[in-house]
Amino acid sequence: MKKIDGGLENVPGFSFSAVKCGIRYEGRYDYTLIFCEKECNAAGLFTKNRITAPPVILCRERIGNSIRAILINSTNANACTGEKGYKDAEDLTDDIARRLKLSPESVLASSTGIIGHNLPVEKMKSCHEELCSSLSRTNGRLVPEAIMTTDTFPKSSARSFTSEGREYTIAGTVKGSGMIAPDMATLLAFVITDYPLSGENLNRIFKKTVDPTLNSINIDGDMSTNDTAIILSPVPPDTIEETDTGPFEEALYSLLKQLSEMLVMDAEGATRMVTIKVINAASPSDARLAAKAVSESMLVKTAIFGRDPNWGRIIAAAGYSCAEVDERKLSIYFDDFILFEKGSPCDFDYNDLADILNKRKYSITIDLGLGEGSSEIMTSDLSYEYVRINAEYST
Amino acid sequence: MKKIDGGLENVPGFSFSAVKCGIRYEGRYDYTLIFCEKECNAAGLFTKNRITAPPVILCRERIGNSIRAILINSTNANACTGEKGYKDAEDLTDDIARRLKLSPESVLASSTGIIGHNLPVEKMKSCHEELCSSLSRTNGRLVPEAIMTTDTFPKSSARSFTSEGREYTIAGTVKGSGMIAPDMATLLAFVITDYPLSGENLNRIFKKTVDPTLNSINIDGDMSTNDTAIILSPVPPDTIEETDTGPFEEALYSLLKQLSEMLVMDAEGATRMVTIKVINAASPSDARLAAKAVSESMLVKTAIFGRDPNWGRIIAAAGYSCAEVDERKLSIYFDDFILFEKGSPCDFDYNDLADILNKRKYSITIDLGLGEGSSEIMTSDLSYEYVRINAEYST
Repeated sequence: MKKIDGGLENVPGFSFSAVKCGIRYEGRYDYTLIFCEKECNAAGLFTKNRITAPPVILCRERIGNSIRAILINSTNANACTGEKGYKDAEDLTDDIARRLKLSPESVLASSTGIIGHNLPVEKMKSCHEELCSSLSRTNGRLVPEAIMTTDTFPKSSARSFTSEGREYTIAGTVKGSGMIAPDMATLLAFVITDYPLSGENLNRIFKKTVDPTLNSINIDGDMSTNDTAIILSPVPPDTIEETDTGPFEEALYSLLKQLSEMLVMDAEGATRMVTIKVINAASPSDARLAAKAVSESMLVKTAIFGRDPNWGRIIAAAGYSCAEVDERKLSIYFDDFILFEKGSPCDFDYNDLADILNKRKYSITIDLGLGEGSSEIMTSDLSYEYVRINAEYST
Repeated sequence: MKKIDGGLENVPGFSFSAVKCGIRYEGRYDYTLIFCEKECNAAGLFTKNRITAPPVILCRERIGNSIRAILINSTNANACTGEKGYKDAEDLTDDIARRLKLSPESVLASSTGIIGHNLPVEKMKSCHEELCSSLSRTNGRLVPEAIMTTDTFPKSSARSFTSEGREYTIAGTVKGSGMIAPDMATLLAFVITDYPLSGENLNRIFKKTVDPTLNSINIDGDMSTNDTAIILSPVPPDTIEETDTGPFEEALYSLLKQLSEMLVMDAEGATRMVTIKVINAASPSDARLAAKAVSESMLVKTAIFGRDPNWGRIIAAAGYSCAEVDERKLSIYFDDFILFEKGSPCDFDYNDLADILNKRKYSITIDLGLGEGSSEIMTSDLSYEYVRINAEYST
């Protein structure tokens, strides 16, 4: 497995286009198309929010089919738009299917942006000719930019790997920098590969790999209505037995881990990326509860912003997380530096810790000393800039 | 029932003292004593955090006894201090008991402030002579100030009420402005009354009244290790049957409601106090889940700060709260102004809403349209000032 330069444009068998449609703002790429030359199996993971945007409903219905295209817009989430929103998503994908001579059920839709506004369907349709005629492999470079909302940089990456002597490629792009909680977020993620896999294996491997990557980041504890992660892989010929999927899994994990880190690095207003590691919990689910509570505590996040090694707030958050916690067995580390050991505050010199607190990226380990459960969640700090961005993002 | 001026000093049978001990900072009242002339029944409600500060453990053990005094310090929470912390609390209350000729088990202790530092026991004991000799009823005015941490104003209030022809008084004081979540908070609350009640009735009524008041405010979703609410009432003579408790309950509710509002008004950095009302939920617990999720959503709270009627974030939070939610039945109001009606965004002019958004205090109602469950939580906004206070509060 090898990291390679660039993003989606590395993967043979796919082409792309993006336009500046002016859906909500003028002059930025906001509408994009991913086209698969061959029929693909698709696996998808979606928001667990009970309020689900129409394009997510449409994806859930169609994801079992052979997939040929994904139509994505930014700046408008087409969420809380009810039946009209669903019809709009259907209408847009139908029009793309007709132009590309595909079955309507083979086109997926995805939207991100402001909640509660209808899509400007006619304006969007007027871009469909350009979207279809400008499809090319090199345009893969435009997709990460076209799916951004408050992201400050486009996010994509790629890997190559060898399976049974053949070289394959996998690449992905993600967006999202606020409303991000474990179990996805206002997060869109699209992964494509030329490695052929059955739908069943694709589903299993994607789910397994998303859990410790995209599903283990927490920026503000707010789960969105539009979260979507989709992977496309060519349908394997019936005659071919599936090869050892190990190299593919390794490449997928490496790709999604890097894309997840990019999301946290670009979290709204973030100045720090901190991995909350809970170890030796009574159970894996306890570890997850504690990691989630610490990673979304406003007091912990402001302390990280303030370069304050405030382990008291970390313990308090672990204590209310519903995980089993025993103060006398609990220890806390910032990177390898111990601050609290089995119930007792450690004497330390703040200056010795300053090097860690000033790093862009460090870890906080909470050793519960009770069992063997562990969990990691990547989070960001809570800064003035977070408040500014989210107080000014206007309805 | 009548609101009366002033606070604790209104209640006959109690005396108070407060000193500037210099526990963590010089020149501020930080150590205070509440003394009951007669034996009192006490009821207490404490943090549900699994990490519990030693003074809370001590209170839980002693609260069933007849109580004669509460010894309270601010600026140091005596939390995460283990056995030493417990011995310190015991040592301090023992010394007060000896000086006042009380049984040690009749003295409660309460601490608030920084986590993880041992109390300066000898320094504190050196103030005990003054604490005991300066007890007076008028010093009740000093208690609210002496229990403050980041609070910007002292908080107390009082009521008088008549029961079976006799006039009684009830008064209380609270502190807390951060680390406040439902099910208490870094909240201390002390209520005293001259109305005699059995321990059993006191417990029942206190619990019932704290639920919709002190337990229904949410500033940052962070539950503290020290939360404590205690009420003291004189032990009734055996020969006296208990009177109708209605007027007492009414006065207690009115008092705690006002004190809860004061807490939210003084929330760290708060510019707004918003009551999140969930109505017509499938069940009361669903209503509570939705109100909690909305009241602690960082995105909702920054929108309130930004005067942005961002109902999309409110719906998203209700959607991930685990409450049953159906977009097509859901409506949202700011005060009486409807923004979203049964699945459809309403057309409205932002200017018509501005009057509400600019108010110091308003309500957001989420009508789930599913059943008869309802719940209210008071919350504050998330401002630059919140970040400043909590990034700079140094360990």
